[in-house]
Order: sequence, then C-alpha cells, then structure tokens
Amino acid sequence: MSERIHATYWLETGDDPLRAAEVIAGEQSSGTFLKLANETPELKARSGAVVEKLEVLGTAPTPSLPGGMGSKVFTQCKLELSWPIENIGPCLPNLLSTVAGNLFELRQVSGLRILDMQLPPSFAAAYPGPAFGMGGTRQLSGVSSGPLIGTIIKPSVGLNPTETAEQVQLLVDGGIDFIKDDELQADGPHCPFDERVTRVMRVVNQAAQKSGRKTMVAFNITGDLDQMKRRHDLVLAHGGTCVMVCMNSVGLVGVTELRKHSALPLHAHRAGWGYLSRSPQLGWDFAAWQQIWRLAGVDHLHVNGLRNKFSEPDAVVVEAAQSVVKPLFDNKPMTVVPVFSSAQTGLQAHDTYAAVGSADLIVTAGGGIFGHPDGVAAGVTALRQAWDAAIEGTELTHYAHQHPELQRALTFW
Amino acid sequence: MSERIHATYWLETGDDPLRAAEVIAGEQSSGTFLKLANETPELKARSGAVVEKLEVLGTAPTPSLPGGMGSKVFTQCKLELSWPIENIGPCLPNLLSTVAGNLFELRQVSGLRILDMQLPPSFAAAYPGPAFGMGGTRQLSGVSSGPLIGTIIKPSVGLNPTETAEQVQLLVDGGIDFIKDDELQADGPHCPFDERVTRVMRVVNQAAQKSGRKTMVAFNITGDLDQMKRRHDLVLAHGGTCVMVCMNSVGLVGVTELRKHSALPLHAHRAGWGYLSRSPQLGWDFAAWQQIWRLAGVDHLHVNGLRNKFSEPDAVVVEAAQSVVKPLFDNKPMTVVPVFSSAQTGLQAHDTYAAVGSADLIVTAGGGIFGHPDGVAAGVTALRQAWDAAIEGTELTHYAHQHPELQRALTFW
Repeated sequence: MSERIHATYWLETGDDPLRAAEVIAGEQSSGTFLKLANETPELKARSGAVVEKLEVLGTAPTPSLPGGMGSKVFTQCKLELSWPIENIGPCLPNLLSTVAGNLFELRQVSGLRILDMQLPPSFAAAYPGPAFGMGGTRQLSGVSSGPLIGTIIKPSVGLNPTETAEQVQLLVDGGIDFIKDDELQADGPHCPFDERVTRVMRVVNQAAQKSGRKTMVAFNITGDLDQMKRRHDLVLAHGGTCVMVCMNSVGLVGVTELRKHSALPLHAHRAGWGYLSRSPQLGWDFAAWQQIWRLAGVDHLHVNGLRNKFSEPDAVVVEAAQSVVKPLFDNKPMTVVPVFSSAQTGLQAHDTYAAVGSADLIVTAGGGIFGHPDGVAAGVTALRQAWDAAIEGTELTHYAHQHPELQRALTFW
Repeated sequence: MSERIHATYWLETGDDPLRAAEVIAGEQSSGTFLKLANETPELKARSGAVVEKLEVLGTAPTPSLPGGMGSKVFTQCKLELSWPIENIGPCLPNLLSTVAGNLFELRQVSGLRILDMQLPPSFAAAYPGPAFGMGGTRQLSGVSSGPLIGTIIKPSVGLNPTETAEQVQLLVDGGIDFIKDDELQADGPHCPFDERVTRVMRVVNQAAQKSGRKTMVAFNITGDLDQMKRRHDLVLAHGGTCVMVCMNSVGLVGVTELRKHSALPLHAHRAGWGYLSRSPQLGWDFAAWQQIWRLAGVDHLHVNGLRNKFSEPDAVVVEAAQSVVKPLFDNKPMTVVPVFSSAQTGLQAHDTYAAVGSADLIVTAGGGIFGHPDGVAAGVTALRQAWDAAIEGTELTHYAHQHPELQRALTFW
C-alpha cells in the first residue's frame, strides 16, 4: 500500500462542489483543463489526486473572493484530497507546490483555505525536526520547570549596542529567563550585529558566572544565508544559546539550511503571518502551516497570545498553540515550544496553561514586566508567580495575598 | 541625505486614518503599543518610519476583513511609508520583515495590501539581479527576435522519463523554442529527475546538432538546496540551458543561493501566488512582490496570461507583465522576461504585444499548440505566425490569408 499525502481545505465554489473538487484534484496532479489523450486511466490511477471526502457545510448567495465563475449560489465545503507520495517524494518544497500551489486562483474557487495536513512517515525520515525543543531549551536556559519568562528588546529598532546591553543588564539583573530581539532588528549601521552580540553577551555571561544560570537571548540573525551562518557562529562563539529567524522572510530553504548549520535552538518568528491568514476564506490555517516549519527544524514557534493586541481571536491562538505540541508522527513527535507574545501579563497565565496542558512554553511580556511599579525584577517575579499559581491551580488573586510582587502587579496588569 | 525605503499600501481602517497610519509606522519601526520612555525624539528621528502620504479613497460601512476594531465607518486610503535604510541595511529578508511583517494583523487594520515599493540604490549594489535576462535567453535558445514559443509537458505528473522524452521529441521536431516542466513535476520514483534529464536532453541535443538551435528546456529543480544544486549541475552537464524554481516553495534564501550557484537562466514559477493575492483587501500586489525576486536574480518570471483560465482579470495581468520590464534602478534595470501562460493561443498575441511593448517574452501554450488539426509543428508555426502578425501590425485574420497554419488554427483557437 502506497503512502499518501492528505490535505484538508475549506472550499467555496460557484460550481457543483464535486466537480470543483475534481478540478482542483486534477489541476494539482495529472489533469489539466483540457482533456489529454495521454492521461490514461493507468496514469491517473498512479498519479492522480483523489477526492477523499467532500462535506457540504452551507451556501452563500455571493462569492467570498472575486474573479471566479458566476453563480446564483456558492457552496461551502470541507474537502479532503490525497496524493501518492510517488508524485514528489518526501520533499517539503515540492509538497508546498502540490498542496498550496496553483489552486487558490482557480475560477471554480471563490474561497480556498488549507486547514490541515497529514503527512506520511517518509517525511519524518527525510527531515530532522527540532534539534532542541523544550528539553534542550530547559537545559540551556537552566529553567527546569515552569515557562520561560521572557521579554523583547524595545524600541524594536533604534537603540545602539550600548543601550541594548544596558537594557539587557536590567533584565538579567531582574532574573529574566529569555530575551529576544524584535523581528525588525537586523544589522544596520546604528546597531551593528557584531557589536550588539559582543556587548549583550558580555552582560549575560557575567551574570551567568554569578548565578550559574544563563539567560537565553534569541538574536535575530534573519538575512541571506551566509549572513545567517556567520551571525550564528558569532553568537555561538560568544557563548550565546539561541538564534532567531523570521520564517517568511527567509523561506523554507533558509530554515532548512540554517537547521543544518546551527548548533543552537532556532527561535522561529512568523512575521508576515497576517498576509497568509487574515482572510478567513483564503490562505493558511496555522495547523497546516506549522507542520512545514517543524519538519524543517525550528525549536520555538510563535503562536501569538490570548487577548493579544492583534486581530486574532483567542480560539485561533489556542488552536495554534495546541497544534505545535501535537505529535507530527507516532515515532517522531517533533513537538516544538509554543511562544506566547503580544500584550501578555500574568492575567493570561491560567487560561494559557489550561489551553496548552503544560508549562512547556515561552511567554514574553513587555509592558507586563516593565510596567511594574517596583521595577523589572518585581515584574519578572510577578509574572512567574502568576504562572506558579496557574500550575498549582490556585486562583490568581488568592495567590497574590502571599506574593507581594504579584499583588502589586494586579494593580497595573 | 540618508537613503530611504518607500512602500505604498492600500489600507482600510476603522480608526482615524492618520492615527492608523502612525500605528503601522510605529509598529514597523521604533514604536510599540505602549509608550516607551527610551523611544526618545532623537531615536524616533533616526529610526522611525515616516507617513509620507495618506490619501483617502472612500469609505465602507463594514470591514473587509474580520477581527479588527469596531467602527461605524471604515476608511479606505492609499498610504505611503518610508524607512531609513540604516534600520536594516540593504538586505532582502529584513526588508520583508519590515514592509510585510507584523502589520497585516493589526487591530487598526481591516484591510491591508502592499501595492508597490521604491528601493534605494544600495539594494542594487547588494544583489545581483538576473544573470541572463532576455539577452542571455535569446543567445542560449537561438531565438534572435520575436517571443520564445513554448509549451508545458502535460500531464503535469504521471509520465515516465521515456514518455516525457517522446513528448519532447514531438515538440522539438515541431520547432518549439521552449519547454517547461509542470511545477508539480519533481523527483518521484515514477519519473526520476536524472533519468528524465538524461532522456530529454538526448533528444534535445540530437535535434540541436541537426538544426543548430537548441530548444530551451526548463527542468523543475525545486527542492532542498543540495537537491537543487545537484539537479542544476546535472542539467548543465547534459547540455541543458535552463532550470525552473518555484519561488514560494523554496523562499528567498532558496532563490538567492540558487542564483549564486547557477550557470543557467532561472525560470521562476509563482505557484502559490493565489494565497498571496486573491483577496483584493489583503496581501501583495505583483508590482511590489516581483521586485524581491528580480533582485534575488531570477531571469524569467510568470505573469499569467490575458484571458487566462484562472481568476485574475486582464488588467492585473497587464500590470504584472509591465512591472517586470520596468527598470528597478536607473543604472541597473534588472528587467526580466515575462512568461505568459494559461489558456494561451495566437488570439492573445496582439493584445499581449501591445501590453508589453515588445516581443521580449516567453509565451507557453498547451492546447493552443497540441490542438492544431495538422499537428504540433503546425501548432507551433501558427502561434509564431500570430506573433509575426502582431509585431508587424497586421490584423490576425488578414495575415492568416497568406499563412495556412494560422488559418487552420483560427478554427480551433
């Protein structure tokens, strides 16, 4: 029995749904718009995509997206297609061309979104998955239980290396577990990468010598491949324990090559996720998208945060967070660390803990830490206390009675 | 005077448009949702994005995209932002994070689409652009004037190497200039890449020895980086003159690395373009998107075709085609070859020629060639005749009087 690739879609069509499904299946495998003499039944059986399921969900009087065929009614369905692995072999770029190539623009389609995928085991053999995951991240950061309490250097851009190091000093002194660059931070002349790493790691290493625990700093190394490799090597040479990469900015080959080269956890930022997902009738659900990057080998994956400052509703954030800790393959789970960010404070701790089902995660807060009236150390402590409360199942305000930093934090969160 | 990066957007917002514009500018540079003490006026002047222009286009009573802030009216505008190059340096991945990062999902945004960009000259110095372009393509293919008449191997997948070579033989005998793999063709066990290249190039080389002109075959080498390099080398070793890559499937680093390695023109396929562009209120206009890939160094760029089988209207296709031949920089135009495909016949020749303003292009037709009642050679000839007519400015049916292949073609196009 041949291995098959499965993908599910939300489809809206002005055509007969089954015909539209067959057109998509054909266009993404052996068929085309024109009937071909050499598309024999044998060839189709060998290479054709198969409509596995088609469930009608409802109808709409107008199309969600323009440019498609005219109709009086537009049927919305859940569609599952499958392809024989022999069409492409276990290759992620070719998988993308197949499950998310030239299908969104078909005239039969007035809405199409890829919801999920089920990949055959040969992908697990062909790709490495994360090298560190939560275990490696705990080991490097010295945080043996609970979430990594983190923050982001702000302003996003504009600080020079000395100012950046000063901010890191403040955070490290405050007991922070994790710090990341903003995704806009690069290697400009106002804040050259090498000098930033040198100054920041001096602070981090000095503090680690005293405390025995090294704050993990995710330096944004996003760039061309040679730049990323060189920057990674510099971080490593200075005793750094993490690098950050923007997946959509470097693309799949960028991440797979970085994974090969890297001796550090890859903190994966999803900048650009909005253009892939913001229209509910088009693009990508996170459950499908994140599989690609986990196979490619990232360790930490951004999932937004509950009650965030962006437009994503909480249900979508929960689904995203759960998707990255769901095993990809029975014998190779490739689970990664969900990273929560955007308007996070201790107030989301209980809900986030309940949603993920564990504290194997990174939470980053800016205002939620810096806004503490008693300073950064109190801010870090308060956020950790909120998580301690969540983990032991104690109500937040109750826990605050015995924990003054948390008590004070509740006044500004 | 510092160099600046400019980007224009179509923006819809439930907020005051200027405030929304300032939020986007802030979020994509030195600001954040929280007022920061260290975002000093000096820092903002040095690193902040600037709202250059904001033109209100109209209003709508409901938001185009869900999840944003509530409002009674949603204002649609054209917005131009600029950034100092010092924020990122001339680096394409960091440019992506800046102009198309975490802004589409802002709550202030109920629609956002990047329309165009104007990049400073330092990008021209940092990136190579196309190595071959139209000049190199004409030289390698021996087509000194007029468009390259091309086609695509169909069925997309399912033919074995022998069957593929047989189809190539038919096309080469018919005088075709250009053949490409379908983007779904990869390196599966039914049609291993090496055997396909070996068999196809044997046919192509033998024909070239007789005719003195070698058909250009764009083999799809899309894959992981090592795979692409190895496949490229194999094509080169067998005397091939072109390789194809799916940009969205390999990403920016995939293309820049391939450009460094390649000794052959890069035929760039835009599979997945639909999920980036199909919603008019979200994502990318081609005019902005194509700049990235031209800088990265592709030679041929797909632009769909007039009266295509997909959902893109002709006006969008024309804009796309014109955008790729518009110089990127005064001293380094980096123009690439527009590739027209999808339901193309000779009937689109005149309009396409008028839109591009030259015949420096590749046109690929499937049914438009194979459907000719007198066979493939007649189909190729008829398509070339249609273009000859367009170039000399003769009306198609008039030209057909003296050209029997075209005459016959008009009965089935």
